[in-house]
Amino acid sequence: MIMKNYVFKGNICYSESREELCITENGYAVCEDGRCAGVYDTLPKEYETLPCYNYEDKIIIPGLVDLHVHAPQYAFRGMGMDLELIDWLNTHTFVEEARYGDLEYAGEAYDIFAEDLKNSATTRACIFATIHTQATLLLMEKLEETGIKAYVGKVNMDRNSPEYLCEESAEKSEKDTEEWLLKSQGFKNIKPVLTPRFTPSCTDELLERLSGLQKKYGLPVQSHLSENLDEIDWVKELCPGTSHYGETYDRYGLFGNSCPTIMAHCVHCGEEETELMRRQGVFIAHCPESNANLSSGVAPVKRYLEKGMKVGLGTDVAAGSSLSVFKAMALAVQCSKLRWRLYDQSVVPLTMEEVFFMATKGGGEFFGNVGSFEEGYEFDAVVLDDSMLRHPRKLSAKERLERLIYLADERCIAAKFVDGQVIFRES
Amino acid sequence: MIMKNYVFKGNICYSESREELCITENGYAVCEDGRCAGVYDTLPKEYETLPCYNYEDKIIIPGLVDLHVHAPQYAFRGMGMDLELIDWLNTHTFVEEARYGDLEYAGEAYDIFAEDLKNSATTRACIFATIHTQATLLLMEKLEETGIKAYVGKVNMDRNSPEYLCEESAEKSEKDTEEWLLKSQGFKNIKPVLTPRFTPSCTDELLERLSGLQKKYGLPVQSHLSENLDEIDWVKELCPGTSHYGETYDRYGLFGNSCPTIMAHCVHCGEEETELMRRQGVFIAHCPESNANLSSGVAPVKRYLEKGMKVGLGTDVAAGSSLSVFKAMALAVQCSKLRWRLYDQSVVPLTMEEVFFMATKGGGEFFGNVGSFEEGYEFDAVVLDDSMLRHPRKLSAKERLERLIYLADERCIAAKFVDGQVIFRES
Repeated sequence: MIMKNYVFKGNICYSESREELCITENGYAVCEDGRCAGVYDTLPKEYETLPCYNYEDKIIIPGLVDLHVHAPQYAFRGMGMDLELIDWLNTHTFVEEARYGDLEYAGEAYDIFAEDLKNSATTRACIFATIHTQATLLLMEKLEETGIKAYVGKVNMDRNSPEYLCEESAEKSEKDTEEWLLKSQGFKNIKPVLTPRFTPSCTDELLERLSGLQKKYGLPVQSHLSENLDEIDWVKELCPGTSHYGETYDRYGLFGNSCPTIMAHCVHCGEEETELMRRQGVFIAHCPESNANLSSGVAPVKRYLEKGMKVGLGTDVAAGSSLSVFKAMALAVQCSKLRWRLYDQSVVPLTMEEVFFMATKGGGEFFGNVGSFEEGYEFDAVVLDDSMLRHPRKLSAKERLERLIYLADERCIAAKFVDGQVIFRES
Repeated sequence: MIMKNYVFKGNICYSESREELCITENGYAVCEDGRCAGVYDTLPKEYETLPCYNYEDKIIIPGLVDLHVHAPQYAFRGMGMDLELIDWLNTHTFVEEARYGDLEYAGEAYDIFAEDLKNSATTRACIFATIHTQATLLLMEKLEETGIKAYVGKVNMDRNSPEYLCEESAEKSEKDTEEWLLKSQGFKNIKPVLTPRFTPSCTDELLERLSGLQKKYGLPVQSHLSENLDEIDWVKELCPGTSHYGETYDRYGLFGNSCPTIMAHCVHCGEEETELMRRQGVFIAHCPESNANLSSGVAPVKRYLEKGMKVGLGTDVAAGSSLSVFKAMALAVQCSKLRWRLYDQSVVPLTMEEVFFMATKGGGEFFGNVGSFEEGYEFDAVVLDDSMLRHPRKLSAKERLERLIYLADERCIAAKFVDGQVIFRES
């Protein structure tokens, strides 16, 4: 039997908005039936009988959300970082992804990915697999066992891809996708998400067919948008008559509104594209490390936030080297400062509060009431032990949280809970 | 008795130049009397009788060199990252540095710094202390015990500093510095380096007096140069008649030539200043994380390298959050890509080979023949165990080295040697 009613004691930190970081030192967070029933300075009488996890002086945060990561690319993280997007795809990425036609290789690689993701501070993720149906199902099985909640997508690509990684037709791609969808209904924690790789690798016919599946099954969608300048030019050539990259998805109804959508990157979006995303509630997965590693640039995230758009963070492994959303937070601040200094002083740098918001409640919104300890939120929690970051004087919880953003790794994670259930905890 | 004659077996990686990364897989590196006697595919007969450390499939690199780090600032690493240089100094840095007047606090803080530096991959460092003579000597004692080789500087500052952290006169600053110099002669691994903080906090009289000490004792010098635009404007105001920031040091003979000099940052150097540094052999400590965190910008490092200038890496704690020179390498590549994309396409990004060179032989040159396994180099070595970075297929040593640059932390360090002597090793 799984216990979903209990109290956490510790230094509780969560975002209400991008400006409001709420910190209750030596406080209590209550979990009732897997939902947060509030954060308190003093524990209300009615909860005194619940079991209490006393995390003492540790820092307790909502689980982190990774809105964009490629599971099969984890195998070459931190390697081959000398190319821009299109060359990088052709030289490293497609070659590696093709290996996942081999289920034995896929099993070995996905074991590593799932285990490392489990041991990270990430509680929710939106994940690209490959075109391979069987390997994608295998990834979903392995993730299901971790207890993490995630969307996983079998990738669609039927053009401009090497023969060894190109689906034979739009029709076949649709058929395989539907077969995969039907087989992925049995999971509890893992849900399917439609995943056209990006416009350059999807014919109009394919996007139209995927649109049919989207409506038939009410699926969410994830893809890439306006990451790299050459890519954007290429899309312009491939899709005459569209006025921006986003329109190439929107004309098939795969760009927000009734179709919950995540677009990764959005580094070089123009005004019209940005406005369409805002109006239709498209989620932006900001991937700062990836955008630096592939020399893509830096997305104007502060502007997106100021417009009230939906923004979360993505690690984008393997264009990003690491599964750590902490690293993504630190780099989001750092890259926003360089963008401001080197390129555009009209967009001021991101704050620590803003990146923490994006890593929790901002990305979490894609999953519903996720990423905060406000009442009614699903109880995803990570307990952080920063004792290895030694220090000669007493620090506030806020100082310690900022330091963790810059310096935390798995060694700092003392416990992790998703939707009220324990994923692991130190004995 | 200390053994300084032995053989290492493993995958040996080192730089000959910024373009030439030498890798001998399953090779041998020989240490004779603390110096490298060459790297071999097959062990020459003459060395067969030496004891052999068999590191099997591990990666062996020269120790890393940190050309710029502030020991007292380690206490607030990863905090207060929302300001630019001058405000950051006044708000966070000076307040913390003032605490080192209290020897008890200094002892506690420097214990942490020295121990963490010992456990890092750094074998050589150039370190700023504070204005306090006793605390600086205490830092030197603690570092001496680690076995790391380092230059440490008592900081000089006699103007534009808060009263609680300002030396009372140039004369007193000189007197204290000479007293400190005389007391720091007894160390074996740790040497003193003259450390005028930066021009804004040093009067002309102070620089002149320090110049006298430099000549009298033949000392090296470290300081800061052209880090931040406001700082540069301020120096212009403070030093009328100088044509660039570098000249404010050069006119007192504290800028290369017979005075071995490290200048940290060099983000915004003009042509004349750059040319003077090149001609006089000034070392540049490139500190990419610091320059991002304080919104300073990105130094045109590739250009410096192409001119044949002397460049190493600095972590610049606490404007940089971490003592990890691996992190500095990764960020040096990443920031150079953003500089290229956002600001100046005439300076192409740094390569993995170049940042590895800077982190080893480039910075090592300040210490003599240090930072390589070429014959005659002092035997500084770090043995890296990347088994925690799991992977489904076999990788080359070069791929593994690149991945370690992005992902290594202390858990990957299996052993560390400085000048032929073991600092630590896994049992």
